[in-house]
Order: sequence, then C-alpha cells, then structure tokens
Amino acid sequence: MQQLLEYQQVLQKKIDELSFPEEPKNLYDPLRYFLNLGGKRTRPTLTLMGCSLFGEPGLKAINAAVAVELFHNFTLIHDDIMDDAPLRRGKNTVHEKWNNNIGILSGDVLFVEAYKQLARHEVDVLPELLSVFSRTAKEVCEGQQMDMDFESRNDVSIDEYIEMIRLKTSVLLGAALEMGAVIAKADSKDVAKIYEFGMNVGLAFQLQDDILDLYADPDKFGKQVGGDILSNKKTYLLIKAQELANDDQRKQLNDILDNQTGETKVNNSRTLFDELGVKQSAQKRMDAYYLKAKENMNQISVPDECKSELLSIAEALMNREN
Amino acid sequence: MQQLLEYQQVLQKKIDELSFPEEPKNLYDPLRYFLNLGGKRTRPTLTLMGCSLFGEPGLKAINAAVAVELFHNFTLIHDDIMDDAPLRRGKNTVHEKWNNNIGILSGDVLFVEAYKQLARHEVDVLPELLSVFSRTAKEVCEGQQMDMDFESRNDVSIDEYIEMIRLKTSVLLGAALEMGAVIAKADSKDVAKIYEFGMNVGLAFQLQDDILDLYADPDKFGKQVGGDILSNKKTYLLIKAQELANDDQRKQLNDILDNQTGETKVNNSRTLFDELGVKQSAQKRMDAYYLKAKENMNQISVPDECKSELLSIAEALMNREN
Repeated sequence: MQQLLEYQQVLQKKIDELSFPEEPKNLYDPLRYFLNLGGKRTRPTLTLMGCSLFGEPGLKAINAAVAVELFHNFTLIHDDIMDDAPLRRGKNTVHEKWNNNIGILSGDVLFVEAYKQLARHEVDVLPELLSVFSRTAKEVCEGQQMDMDFESRNDVSIDEYIEMIRLKTSVLLGAALEMGAVIAKADSKDVAKIYEFGMNVGLAFQLQDDILDLYADPDKFGKQVGGDILSNKKTYLLIKAQELANDDQRKQLNDILDNQTGETKVNNSRTLFDELGVKQSAQKRMDAYYLKAKENMNQISVPDECKSELLSIAEALMNREN
Repeated sequence: MQQLLEYQQVLQKKIDELSFPEEPKNLYDPLRYFLNLGGKRTRPTLTLMGCSLFGEPGLKAINAAVAVELFHNFTLIHDDIMDDAPLRRGKNTVHEKWNNNIGILSGDVLFVEAYKQLARHEVDVLPELLSVFSRTAKEVCEGQQMDMDFESRNDVSIDEYIEMIRLKTSVLLGAALEMGAVIAKADSKDVAKIYEFGMNVGLAFQLQDDILDLYADPDKFGKQVGGDILSNKKTYLLIKAQELANDDQRKQLNDILDNQTGETKVNNSRTLFDELGVKQSAQKRMDAYYLKAKENMNQISVPDECKSELLSIAEALMNREN
C-alpha cells in the first residue's frame, strides 16, 4: 500500500503547515493542539485516492482532502463536549484542557476553515463539492443527534442503529471518496458507486468496531476490552442481544447492565452474547456490507488494476485487530 | 423607508417557508423554534439593499440574505450557551428549553444550512461570496472569543474593546451589504466602500447600544436600564471610566462594581460616569463612526437618490431610543 503511505505523509505535512492566527490565543491554540494529536488521516487519504482512481493526480484533490480532515476534527471537538469525554488519542480533549465554551467556539472556527479550504477548488467543480460537503455535514449532525437520543431510549431497533452509524460515521467515508471523484470529473454513475463503496466500507468498519470492543485480543487492542458494555453503550451487539433474548435472558442482561461492574460485567455479558449468537450476527451483517462494497467497486468503470489499492485498504480495515 | 419594510416582509416570508426535516426532532425542532422568535431581520435586509443600491433587483440576493440571517441565528444559539443566557427576545434560549448539547448541535446544522443557501448563487459570484462569508464567520468567532477573554481581564483598553465589537458585530453588517454588492457585480472599489459603510454604522450602533443601556428613557427602553453595569459588563462606558478615573474615583468605581446592587449601583455609576464625561466620550466616538460611514457612502459611484434609503436607515439607527 505504497500510495496510501505516500498520501498519508503528504497530508500530515499539509496539516502541519496550516497556519492559524496567533490571536485570540484561546481560539486558535486549541486548534493547533488538537490537529497535532495525530490520527491516521484516513478520510482525507480517501479523497486523494478517489481522485487518483479516476486517472487524475491524487494531489489535485488536496484542498478538499484537508477540508474533510478539518471537518472531521471539528466534529470530534464538539462530540467530545457532548459526550463529556476527557480523553482523545490518549490526551486531554479541548473542553477538558480549556473549557466548554472554548471547545464550542474553536470547533466553530475550524468548521469555517474547512469550508475555506474547500472553496479553493475551481468553479467547474466547486458547486458539486459544496453540495456533497454540506449534505454530509448535515447528515453527520443528524447521526450525532440520533446517537444522543438513543442514550435515553430502551427500544432502539437494529435498523435505527444502522441508520445512526451510517449518518454519524459512514457517509463521511463515502463523501471523502466522492469528492475526489468529482474533482477527477468521473462519470456521475461512477461518482455514485464510489460513494456507496465508501459508505458500505464505513458500515462494515463500524460493526467491526463494535465486535472488537468486546472480542479483541487484549494484548493487541490498545484500549480496555469491554469499554462499550461497561458504559452500557448501545452497540449492535447489545441491541441484538436485547432483541434475541427470551424473558430469562432479558432479566439476566438487565441485571448485568444495571448491577454488575468491571471484569465480571464484561465476562458475563460476553457469555450471554455468545449464547445468543450476537457476535455471529454482527459478523454476518458486516460481511454483507463488505460484499456490497466490493460489488460497488466492481461496477466502477476503471481498469481493475487501479482498484487494487482501495480494495486492499478496505480488506485491511476488515481484518484489523484494533 | 418603503423598500426596507417590503424587504423585511419578503425575508420574513422566506424564512417562514424554510423547511427542515421532521427527524431527528431534537435537532430540527430547536431551529423551527428559534427562527420563529422573530427579530427585525436587519442583516439580510441589508444584503438585499446592498444589491439594489447597485441597480439590480434586491431579490437577486435573496439566498445570500437568508444565509446571512441563518448564520446570525447560529451565532446567537451558540453565544447564548457560552453566555449562559436564559432568554432571547423574551423567550427561552435553545439550551435552556432543550439542553446544551442540543444547542451546540442544532447550531452546527444551522451553520451548514447557511452555507447551503449561499451555495445556491451562480458560479460567477460564488467564490467571492464564499470568501466574504467565511472571512466574516471567522472574524465573528474571533470577536466572541475576545469578548469571553475580556470577562476575566481588568486591563482591557478602549482600542481592544473597539476591535472586539468590530469583529463580533460590525463586520457582519458590512459583509451583509458587501455580499449584495458582489451579487449586483458592483465595481470592487464600491464593494469595499459599502463594506466600510456597514462596518462603521455597526460600530456606531454598538456604541449607541452601550450608551442606551445606562442612559435610555426607562419608559421607552423595553428592558431594564443599567443591565450592563449590574452585571459588571465591560462596555465602552465602563472601560473609559476606568481609564479616566483618578485614584479616588477608581476606588469609588471598584466599590460600586464589587459591593453595590440594584438601583443604587445603577444610579451611583451613572453619577460617577457623568463626573468623568464618559457618555460624551462615547457619543463623540459614535458620531465619528457615523460620519465615516456617511463619507464612505459619499464615495460610492451611484446617484445620490439611490443612497437615501440606506442613509435614512443609518440615521434611524443612530437616533433610536431602544
């Protein structure tokens, strides 16, 4: 995956070189801090690859790629406030290091910066880029709102959950690729297919996330196994378990969620989930999205050898251990 | 001011007709609620008038005007959270009626909607509109951050205060007019002048606000006279008083700010301010900005009779009693 690594490096350099005004310090220091926390820059890399897939130099899409990454970081800063999360990539979140107000406002100004980067593109593609970008930004907000609404609900269905993760995380992967394709002036059918490819990979990725959280090898996972269940987070596994449980098992599950803590809670829920086969159910669903993604890619009208890089990235995402 | 009234009505109708998705309710209900609270729609009206000043139908700028109004409402929703304000236009603020998270997120999605409206304009003006809009959005964030920083400082200078109100409130008035002029394809010198006109009117307007807060006729003001001084808010009057006071007067002022309450506090600070002549100082500064604004308008290359409507609006803003 030579191209991937090269693009990641270019993007890292580009993001390091972004310059924000010195003043007001409390507005721009948080951005310098947060963008320095790193990350794999997956989304903007996809934008460059979406462009290169259709025969244009990936770097032609660099401004849109940076816009995607800045938008993603803006959502993280605001989500961290809403989720009251103290840590992000092992470091203090913005609202924790400064305060909520500074988190709100520095997020806002980062969102403006994302649009500014996007607006650097030529007018022959600008309206379509803006349309994809704003549509996606709106959907990501909707997904985040659904996620917050789910916290106080006990009747969330699998379909609603899938729709939530689709909006909150998957559409941005699709849109990142789509914007690259738009810049390469790909045929509109291909643009639609590469979007769907990204969205389906995103759905599979998120389900994999849910599975790994409870079933990862602790030595390889890099964070606490069982974090979702310890915080009673509504994941595919938990929602499916609630759906499949008989009366007895439901009582057991409620007892685990309401009264148990620590390793006991994690182990007992894993035992119950195994009894119900929810891991297999999640894997089946994940595989189905991964298969759809491969079909989407199949239907794109570029030579197969151009597709291999994106397909191997998707495969690596499916077979990861953390 | 026939045109003003007509434009206000058109805008009101346009904003009433904006349709947001039904779901998620907690994301879009706050927007329907907040946009229904009313307001004079001053900023978007300026966009229409900025366009009509240069010989095009004002309604040609309707999408940019709506974008300006949505952006303004987005900043109000977020500012209300940051200022912990319970009321806006006599009704509950969004974070008060729902909660902070919903305030953050519905604000975010409203900001997206503003860009969506702006992006409806043709590509021959779109890049310039985006540039003005994003530049202004960034400045408004900077102004809000300065305002928050001032709360914990005791050494704010008049120059810093003016820069803060310029960024927080005045640039948006300038940009609203500027965007109308851009859409009418005004000459770039005229575009710059109409921006400056709006910004100078905005500065004069804000200083008038500071004066009225302490010196308005209570029967005509519509809210509590002395609100700023009761909350120790750093306004032009207070900063100037701190600057002009001798040691004795400074002690007196600190005693008023730290230990007094209610009508006593308001009356004693008014007496001290009168002694120091800070009202006259504010009026002098306000008149200077108003004069600059009129000079800016003078330099714009359209017939004088086209300018009368905007000039009378500016005059009305200067001579208001609430």
